Amino acid sequence: MLNVNSYFDDKVKSIAFQGQELATTVGVMDIGEFTFGTSQFETMTVIDGELDVKLPGTENWQRFTNGEQFEVAANTSFDVKVIRQTAYHCTYA
Amino acid sequence: MLNVNSYFDDKVKSIAFQGQELATTVGVMDIGEFTFGTSQFETMTVIDGELDVKLPGTENWQRFTNGEQFEVAANTSFDVKVIRQTAYHCTYA
Repeated sequence: MLNVNSYFDDKVKSIAFQGQELATTVGVMDIGEFTFGTSQFETMTVIDGELDVKLPGTENWQRFTNGEQFEVAANTSFDVKVIRQTAYHCTYA
Repeated sequence: MLNVNSYFDDKVKSIAFQGQELATTVGVMDIGEFTFGTSQFETMTVIDGELDVKLPGTENWQRFTNGEQFEVAANTSFDVKVIRQTAYHCTYA
């Protein structure tokens, strides 16, 4: 069974699956600005798209595009500006 | 608006989006065997997982894993055996 989750009025949707080692999702973010909360350590990789990300404890926005990834600690939040519709891969540990 | 599609009794789900150049989906295939029909030229990339694929006009199964891709012509079909739950990226041209 594959669970689909929707966030931010359906502007972000993801499909959960079991990766080789970790619980994983792939999803798509529509154009917009979002603040994601984390409950676990997350490693997010841009599959196809373009994001500006402000990581916890930083003041600068960093651009991430195809194949680039960033990590976020558990129990914090990070801000994302989606430049074009973006597919992402995220593992939870 | 992000459209989610389900196939094969919900064993394959995908989210459609507009890629930089082409209509694109990301999705997840559950473990199983599926025959996909194509209406357009498709380029499928394994994001995270493991597939055995029998392409049109071939008799051999080929293994595809993370980062590997294959192309399928329009108006044909291809067979997939999903070894573990697999996230994929697909463009349509």
